[in-house]
Formats: sequence, C-alpha cells, structure tokens
Amino acid sequence: MGLKAIFLNCTLKYPPEVSNTRALIDRAAELFSELGVESEVIRMTDYNIKFGTSSDMGGDDEWPGIYEEIKQADIIIIGSPIWFGVRSSVAQLVLERLDGSYADGDPVTGQYPLYGKVAGVIITGNEDGAHNVAANTLFNLTHLGCTIPPNADCYWVGDAGPGPSYIEAGGDKHLYTNRTVRYMVNNLTWMAKLLKDNKNPVNLKKLDEDAEKVSR
Amino acid sequence: MGLKAIFLNCTLKYPPEVSNTRALIDRAAELFSELGVESEVIRMTDYNIKFGTSSDMGGDDEWPGIYEEIKQADIIIIGSPIWFGVRSSVAQLVLERLDGSYADGDPVTGQYPLYGKVAGVIITGNEDGAHNVAANTLFNLTHLGCTIPPNADCYWVGDAGPGPSYIEAGGDKHLYTNRTVRYMVNNLTWMAKLLKDNKNPVNLKKLDEDAEKVSR
Amino acid sequence: MGLKAIFLNCTLKYPPEVSNTRALIDRAAELFSELGVESEVIRMTDYNIKFGTSSDMGGDDEWPGIYEEIKQADIIIIGSPIWFGVRSSVAQLVLERLDGSYADGDPVTGQYPLYGKVAGVIITGNEDGAHNVAANTLFNLTHLGCTIPPNADCYWVGDAGPGPSYIEAGGDKHLYTNRTVRYMVNNLTWMAKLLKDNKNPVNLKKLDEDAEKVSR
Amino acid sequence: MGLKAIFLNCTLKYPPEVSNTRALIDRAAELFSELGVESEVIRMTDYNIKFGTSSDMGGDDEWPGIYEEIKQADIIIIGSPIWFGVRSSVAQLVLERLDGSYADGDPVTGQYPLYGKVAGVIITGNEDGAHNVAANTLFNLTHLGCTIPPNADCYWVGDAGPGPSYIEAGGDKHLYTNRTVRYMVNNLTWMAKLLKDNKNPVNLKKLDEDAEKVSR
Repeated sequence: MGLKAIFLNCTLKYPPEVSNTRALIDRAAELFSELGVESEVIRMTDYNIKFGTSSDMGGDDEWPGIYEEIKQADIIIIGSPIWFGVRSSVAQLVLERLDGSYADGDPVTGQYPLYGKVAGVIITGNEDGAHNVAANTLFNLTHLGCTIPPNADCYWVGDAGPGPSYIEAGGDKHLYTNRTVRYMVNNLTWMAKLLKDNKNPVNLKKLDEDAEKVSR
Repeated sequence: MGLKAIFLNCTLKYPPEVSNTRALIDRAAELFSELGVESEVIRMTDYNIKFGTSSDMGGDDEWPGIYEEIKQADIIIIGSPIWFGVRSSVAQLVLERLDGSYADGDPVTGQYPLYGKVAGVIITGNEDGAHNVAANTLFNLTHLGCTIPPNADCYWVGDAGPGPSYIEAGGDKHLYTNRTVRYMVNNLTWMAKLLKDNKNPVNLKKLDEDAEKVSR
Repeated sequence: MGLKAIFLNCTLKYPPEVSNTRALIDRAAELFSELGVESEVIRMTDYNIKFGTSSDMGGDDEWPGIYEEIKQADIIIIGSPIWFGVRSSVAQLVLERLDGSYADGDPVTGQYPLYGKVAGVIITGNEDGAHNVAANTLFNLTHLGCTIPPNADCYWVGDAGPGPSYIEAGGDKHLYTNRTVRYMVNNLTWMAKLLKDNKNPVNLKKLDEDAEKVSR
Repeated sequence: MGLKAIFLNCTLKYPPEVSNTRALIDRAAELFSELGVESEVIRMTDYNIKFGTSSDMGGDDEWPGIYEEIKQADIIIIGSPIWFGVRSSVAQLVLERLDGSYADGDPVTGQYPLYGKVAGVIITGNEDGAHNVAANTLFNLTHLGCTIPPNADCYWVGDAGPGPSYIEAGGDKHLYTNRTVRYMVNNLTWMAKLLKDNKNPVNLKKLDEDAEKVSR
C-alpha cells in the first residue's frame, strides 16, 4: 500500500528535552506500523523556522525542507501541547507557514498541495484546552485541502489546574486516550487509502469562474 | 445516486422573520440540485426543542423527529448566525442534542449513527466570528462520526463592527462566499458518494477491547 | 457596603434535576457571604426565555424580569457547564439576550447598563473546555461594559474523556478549584467596591463624536 | 500622573517590513499621548525570543529585557494580526513566555508581577477572527494578574475572504475601529489610574492556605 504518515511535533521544548507530546505520538506511530503505515516524526524545534506566511522565507529558513516532507506524506498529524488553553506557538507557526501552500495550487484543478491528504491531531497538556486545539487545527487543515475522517483527534489532559504531564501521570495507561488513538489511527489509515484510490475530481478553477459570473 | 443533504438552520429568528443564514443556505441548495443532490432545510425555531443531551427528552420535545431526518441524510450542514463571536445558542442546542447519538452505536461495529455521513457548515454574521463557528462545529461533527472533506465551510461576514447582514449587504454577489459555497457543495457531494460506495470498516468495539488491555 | 452578586446558572438541566454547576456556585456564594456580599442564584431553565437579541421578545418571555435583576447587581457571574468543548446553549442564550442591553445606553454618557459592574465565570464539566468557556464569556461581558479583575474564573474539570462530574468526583475537595474560587470571589468583591466608589467617567457619546470626525 | 503603556506588536513581519498592526497601535498611542500616558512599542520580531515558558531561557534569549519593560508598565497591550482565525504565533509566544511570571509572585501576597496592571488588545486582519484573538488574549492576561476594563479591545478586519489589510484598505477611516480605539484607550487609562491609587489587597497566599484546609 505504501502509505506514509508525517507527525509534526510542535512541542516548545528544544532537544534533547523530553517531549510529552512525542510520547503520545509514539503510541500512534506504533499503531500505524501495525497497519503497515510508515511514520516520520519531525520535531519543529530541531529546525530554524522563520515566522511568516510564505513557503520559503529565504536565508537560513529550514521550512522548505519540511514542506517537501509534508507534501510527500499521505497523512499529516499535528502534535501540539496546550499552553494558555490553545495550541503552542510552534503549532501556530506551522499553520502560518502552510499558508504559503495556497500559492502552489495545481495548474489545472487549482487544488492546493494538501488536497488528497488526510489529517489528524495529537494533543497533550496537563489540563484543559484540547478541544480548542483540535477544533482550530483540524479546521485550518481542511482549508488547506485535507480531509478529516471521524474521530481524528487524540488527546490526554489531566484534571483542572497545574499537575503532571502525560508521561509522569502515566497517561499511557489512560483508557480514553488509548481508545481514541486507536480510533484516530484506524480512521486516518482507512481514509488515506480511500483518497489514494479515488482522486478528488473537483476543479476549483472552474468553480472560481462560475463564482465570478454571479459576483460583483 | 440518491444523495440527500439536510440543512439545520440555527437562526435565532422565529418564523416568519427572514433569516440571512437561510438565504445563503438557499445558494448551497441550488448548487446541490444542479449536482442531483436533494436538499431539505429545517429551521430549528419552527420546533419545540428541549435543552438536554439525550435523543428524546420526552413530553412535547420535537427533537426525535428531527433526529430521524438527520439519520436519513448523507450530508449534514449546520447553518448558524454568529452572535458574540461564536455560534448561535440554537446551533449549540443542536450539537448538545446530537450528544445523545453516542448512545446509539451500531451493535457490531460500535460506529455512531453519524458515521458514514459527510458534514459542512454555513455561517452568516454582520462581522467576525466565522472561523470560530466553523472550527468548533466541524470538529464536534467529526467526534459524532462525520467526515469533513476539504473546504467544507462557507461564510459571509461584513467588516469590523455592526453593519448590514448578508441579504441587505448584497452578500449574494460576494465573490469569496460564492467561490467557497461551490467548493463546499462539490466537495461534500464527492465525499458523500465516496462514503456511500465505501463503508468505513473500522470496528470501534474491537478497538475498545484493545485499548482496555493496555489501560489501567 | 451592600454589594450584590447575581449568579446565572446556565445548566441544561431542568429543575428538580441536580446541577453540578450549581454545586460550585454554592461554594462561591458561601465565600461571598463571608465577605458580606449578598448572592442570588437564578437557574435559567426555571424560566421561559425566548431566543433573540432584544431585551423583551414579548409574549410569555421571562427574560425582562431576569434582566432587571442583572441590572440591580454589582457582580455578575455566569455559571456554565461545558458541552462539546464550549459553553452551554443556555449560557449562549443569556449572552444573546444581553445583546439587547446595548440599546439601553445612558442618555448622557452612552455607557451601557453593565458598565460599572464586575464579572466572573464558574464552569464545570467532566473534562476539557473551561478555558474556551471562560475566555469567550468574560470577553463578551467586557463588551457589554463589565470589568474583569484578575483571576475572575473558577472551574472544575476531570481528565480526558467521559467521567464523573463535579459532585460525584468530589470536586469540592479539589485544591485548584478551591484556590481559584477564593481568588475569584475576593477579586470580584474588591473590584466591585472600587467601582462603586469610583464611577467610570468615560463618555462614549463624546468619543463617538470624535471618531466620526476622523472617519469616512 | 506618570502612566506608561507598553504595546507588544506581535506581527509576523520582520523589520523593516511595514506592519498593519503597528499602524493601528500608532492610533492608540496618539490617543494615550493626548491623555498624558506615555507609550512604548516593542516589535517582537526585532528580538531573538526563544520558545519556552520560563522568564529566562538562557543563551542569547532576549526575553528577559522585554519582561523587565513589561513589569515597568501600567498598561499592557498585545497587538496581534490574525492568521488562520487566531492570534499570531508571535503573540502566543509572548503569552507562553509570560507563563514564567507565575513563578515571580510577591513573597507576602503571592500576587503575580502583572497584578496591578491593566490590559487591552489591538488586532488587525484582512478578515475574521478578532473575537477569538481578543477573548483568548484578554482572558490569559487576567490569569496572569491583569484587570480588563470595559471595551478593552480594538480591531479592524475586512469582510469575508482575502483582501486588503488595515493600511491599504484605509482602515484609519473606519468608524467602528476609530470608536473602539477611543473606548479602549480611555477605559484603560481610567482603570490604570484607579489601580495605581488603590492597591489590590487580596492575599493569594492566605487564600491558598484556606483552600488547602478544605481540599484533599
């Protein structure tokens, strides 16, 4: 089958500090492996990524290489910690840089480079905020062209207030998270296969022309 | 093909007051019709819907009939105005009532009743808030089992501050809205066909068992 | 001193069903009592409140009476459960109805009826979503004229996934929630006194005139 | 009076590129000047700020100097563009770094360094998302100790879809934005004076002790 998943780990921590989000990503990658899906994990703080909204900000910007990896994948999963109730600055930076992909539409269909890809999200936090991170991240990815299958998010959070994070809290034994990581991995794999076998025929350029005719 | 789309119009206005959200829904319904997809529009304020999170709150609750309609549809589109930057209370009420569907999982696969359905969102507001409404609504629908294809949202909003709404502002001539309503309708139709021809094989009950084995 | 706090309990549950949000509200009301602040709790589902955005929707709409109570209070606290990661439909309904207060500005200063009031928020959910509820609710209340002191929110949520709610989980013994309810009550009381002794002198009507001079 | 406002401009653009958010910040700074409030504007992309959640990440991290400036100010205003419907990665980075201030509580009262400060938010985007940015940002700042007076946000956004930004669109002539920037500046100034003359007496350490007594 040859499906490939790419995980973008948007932890704030610089290597070699241990990332809780990575620990949950590893659970998903193991499950993908059982289904024959290859995984690649990129830790964004390993790279020098400039702020901006184009695909290449020049100079020593290392986004272009990562963008290439993303375009090669069938399944894209953003992994983010929660800070102040929302996704990390690093996750937001990734989305901002993906804004540049709108400019790389297919010359015939106008479909953006992420059309045909499937997306999910993995989230860890010591408390509250997972719905907010998942909702915004998955929605943004649909705008960029991704398809979201059912139950495409997986998160672990502790109860209200500061507390231990995923690893320390033994989140790897948390039933809800273990259920949803399985739902996510299986649904993403199913949908990625389906999209590989069934190319989206929608021609955005043609629809743009139709829209122009009825607009001022 | 026989695809059916259901629009749940979550305007705050009681009939016969004119709904701006309905005006944009009508654009989408026309486009569905051109693609051979049948549309039904339900205005929630036409019915007596109780607050709650089960599928039947008893008494004169009219949700059960609407829930049946939703289960018959292939494509579900929530139409919501924006109030205070978020979706209407009526739209939130619809989601809360759909919480009851989790209890109606398939006895074999555990898949919830909205598995196999495709979802989109239509939003109107005199200003700001569409991303918030779309993100939360589409994400909630994925939790309930829906698939979200690319560009599955369509909205019209005016610029900052109070101002005319969709109808009065001539939103039907707004290029961005006219483009995205076409993207949405075409992507929803394509994905609905795909799901009709390719049943999701994921067995949630089996995955629950696997998860239990590795959880405390 | 004569300060009065009003709690609007936006549980989805109809009386006499027990409300978890009410249980946490009661903690706050006890603390207010120790500081000499009088509390009133209104359970919205006790009343027939129409959907809409004006202060009186006519017929058997019971909002006008509640709106009067709100205008008499010094401290306004929205109590909301979390459903699908966001505030309840009932809480959203309350905000939508408060939209009508913009029309009741002071004839001289233009200040809306909630200017001079202090606001907080109390949230319970079995998991995740408190930041989202608090952020939107407190922000909306600043738009309506309220002042938000530091640490004006108090919530209890359990860890990821379905689980027991505040009462059943023994949330009344949860340290973080017990700390923040104290921070909230003390800060709200302090600020309410301050605003009672120091009327906001800002004249919105005058500022509107200034703005018009430099706008097109 | 000697009040000082600090604006943290969280544009994604590196100098010398022109920032739309800065253009709206300048409107606010002029109005502060008329009221005798001194303004300082810091463009975050002028500095090397590491990702993280402590007040000093070491090495060539330039956050510590900015943090000192923030602690000297009476009024803190986050200026952010909107990207993908939410605040910029740079704005999120600023909040994440302010997380470190929780560790710098007053030894007697426990109040965090931002207690006693007043906060507002300025937002520009070519469309939709201002409510989301304002709600999360102001709420986060209340957690850090800031007080939010009424109408403490000011934004400019265009109508649905891509389009010109604040400067190009002539946003400086937009009535709603010109009204709200005046509301914001006047309310922030009033509240900053009030807080300067009336120190918050709440002792968080004492409340922590009370909470511990009733918690498990």
